[in-house]
Amino acid sequence: MTDENSLVLRQDDAGVTTLTLNRPQARNALSRAMLKALHRAFDDIATDQAVRVVILAGAGPGFCAGHDLKEVRANQEDQTYAEALFAECAELMLAIVRLPKPVIARVHGIATAAGCQLVATCDLAITADDARFATPGVNIGLFCSTPMVALSRNVTPKQAMQMLLTGDPIDAATALRFGLVNEIVPAAGLEARTAALASQLAGKSPLTLAIGKAAFYHQLELPLAEAYDYSRQAMVRNLQTLDAQEGIAAFIDKRPPRWCGH
Amino acid sequence: MTDENSLVLRQDDAGVTTLTLNRPQARNALSRAMLKALHRAFDDIATDQAVRVVILAGAGPGFCAGHDLKEVRANQEDQTYAEALFAECAELMLAIVRLPKPVIARVHGIATAAGCQLVATCDLAITADDARFATPGVNIGLFCSTPMVALSRNVTPKQAMQMLLTGDPIDAATALRFGLVNEIVPAAGLEARTAALASQLAGKSPLTLAIGKAAFYHQLELPLAEAYDYSRQAMVRNLQTLDAQEGIAAFIDKRPPRWCGH
Amino acid sequence: MTDENSLVLRQDDAGVTTLTLNRPQARNALSRAMLKALHRAFDDIATDQAVRVVILAGAGPGFCAGHDLKEVRANQEDQTYAEALFAECAELMLAIVRLPKPVIARVHGIATAAGCQLVATCDLAITADDARFATPGVNIGLFCSTPMVALSRNVTPKQAMQMLLTGDPIDAATALRFGLVNEIVPAAGLEARTAALASQLAGKSPLTLAIGKAAFYHQLELPLAEAYDYSRQAMVRNLQTLDAQEGIAAFIDKRPPRWCGH
Repeated sequence: MTDENSLVLRQDDAGVTTLTLNRPQARNALSRAMLKALHRAFDDIATDQAVRVVILAGAGPGFCAGHDLKEVRANQEDQTYAEALFAECAELMLAIVRLPKPVIARVHGIATAAGCQLVATCDLAITADDARFATPGVNIGLFCSTPMVALSRNVTPKQAMQMLLTGDPIDAATALRFGLVNEIVPAAGLEARTAALASQLAGKSPLTLAIGKAAFYHQLELPLAEAYDYSRQAMVRNLQTLDAQEGIAAFIDKRPPRWCGH
Repeated sequence: MTDENSLVLRQDDAGVTTLTLNRPQARNALSRAMLKALHRAFDDIATDQAVRVVILAGAGPGFCAGHDLKEVRANQEDQTYAEALFAECAELMLAIVRLPKPVIARVHGIATAAGCQLVATCDLAITADDARFATPGVNIGLFCSTPMVALSRNVTPKQAMQMLLTGDPIDAATALRFGLVNEIVPAAGLEARTAALASQLAGKSPLTLAIGKAAFYHQLELPLAEAYDYSRQAMVRNLQTLDAQEGIAAFIDKRPPRWCGH
Repeated sequence: MTDENSLVLRQDDAGVTTLTLNRPQARNALSRAMLKALHRAFDDIATDQAVRVVILAGAGPGFCAGHDLKEVRANQEDQTYAEALFAECAELMLAIVRLPKPVIARVHGIATAAGCQLVATCDLAITADDARFATPGVNIGLFCSTPMVALSRNVTPKQAMQMLLTGDPIDAATALRFGLVNEIVPAAGLEARTAALASQLAGKSPLTLAIGKAAFYHQLELPLAEAYDYSRQAMVRNLQTLDAQEGIAAFIDKRPPRWCGH
């Protein structure tokens, strides 16, 4: 569906769509064109019934180095550029959260600034053991204030502030300890392990995944009693779906379920 | 106070009450009758001055396997059943949070779905080293949307989503790393260690524990400045109690305190 | 700027100001006079252009043992004392959060009760490997309800409740696992390592640090979409500063930046 010169490559395989940031010569920097291409790819996927799970990856030596500083510098007199850039970036992040399908970050090399934000924003993240994560904006006088929105919702304040104030990278083991990633694998096994996880999720009911993902992020922002009021209604609706009735029957009858998506 | 056929066994010993889910043949599944029995037990305890600490445990091979899927299936055409079930379950969880005494989960075998939610909801949790924790609803088409309310307030979003989207269990060491449990002990030592912790808490001022537990969950949902406004008033009230005055005097005089509960 | 008898010692060195709690004979207990002296020191620093980073440390065998219980006992009939004490303490904590410069806790020996709260409140914390952290108020009938405001925003509920309900100390390794501190160093290397970290932060643009720290704590309390609305505007403002333009240019030109603070 994409040619090899596209900013974002898309590959579809058995319900799993891999989106690959494709500016390896610029360490997959998020130019405005890249942000738009990636947002459009997620929009296409949102309504594509054939897509059950998304893998987000980067071409070349690293996952993503954040914003495109040369483009930023070229437009630094233009306030409308800056406003549009950070609005488009935030909208992209929210689109990933709102996508009714799981998104797995597949991280190798570096994930810095808005690249680290992408990792923090995805539902799950698997990382190569040699990857590094950083929010180094402070080193160039531009605090990583939007990356920290996602980062600070994944790690403790002290851990987030360490990354934000020093700008120093953390390694994969530290990212796992912080809870920023789910799993570390040797670099050589990264693609295979991520594909296996994606394939596992592609075997679930897509309707159930959609109900659950939406409910997760919604209830997370509510006080406890309100979160229960909301989530128990989500459970009741979920239980009325054919997929839940099939799943429960299959479980009791000790056979694999057959999802119909309703 | 309970006979051996009760759904929930209650044992009282020196200020420590152990509630044991007692449907071992059904892996302590939370039928509506079980939810009601457990909620009633907590209600009885709430106003029982003799109870200082509660241990929540499960009879048989595991702690709790979540909802009773056979009962759910038998009532799947009845929406009022589903609404009542999840309302009663949420009310039980809130009753544990609101109970003015510490509740310790003593986990062995499995704690899955609403069973994992019980662990996440208790104030403290000690687990046998061979226990496993899961929110596997996704495997039967019924996302663990109410368990995730408690789970996602104990672990990071990535960690919660890993459990919710894959349905795969985590082991005790992972649960400790996530911050979902406080301590791992060899299975053979689980009861003794939990009893020792409960006994330690039973030696504190019950009034102080009640003030502190209520303040903890209340302030947790407030913005920082409001949390301080609320909590410093709780400190002032606490300081006016006889137990605080006794505790401070005993500390300065280097003698054990004698709590009066006022 | 301070004499050796001051309650809070202040030492300034190349943009790094070290504030040292100086009641070693009372384990640096936070009497009302100490709270006022420390608050005043932070107020002085807030508007002092020469100060880029603050280290908070304790003289003598430990960091800080919390409130001054002898003073509390002497005033226990006086409700206005208690109200003033906890109001002043909360105001001090908020002053640290609102200070437009990073604050690093340098912890050795013990950090208990309001001393542990100071650690939780600072932006970063480095600890000696033999330090211990506790919220032991429950042992004297006075639950650590204000310390828990800061503590519970740094660690999971189970981890916070373990400290609050038992009153037992955790060691440095556990504090690191909980995310309460950033780094453990051998006691003999604590001062040098903290100085190196402070010096690293003093080399950043003070304006960028001020923008970023304020944005961090503000967005942390907002729902996700609102946090992005707020933080992307902070990014736009930050990008218009001379320091960001200099930082980006220096990065692209591969030279060190020269901050002007505007």
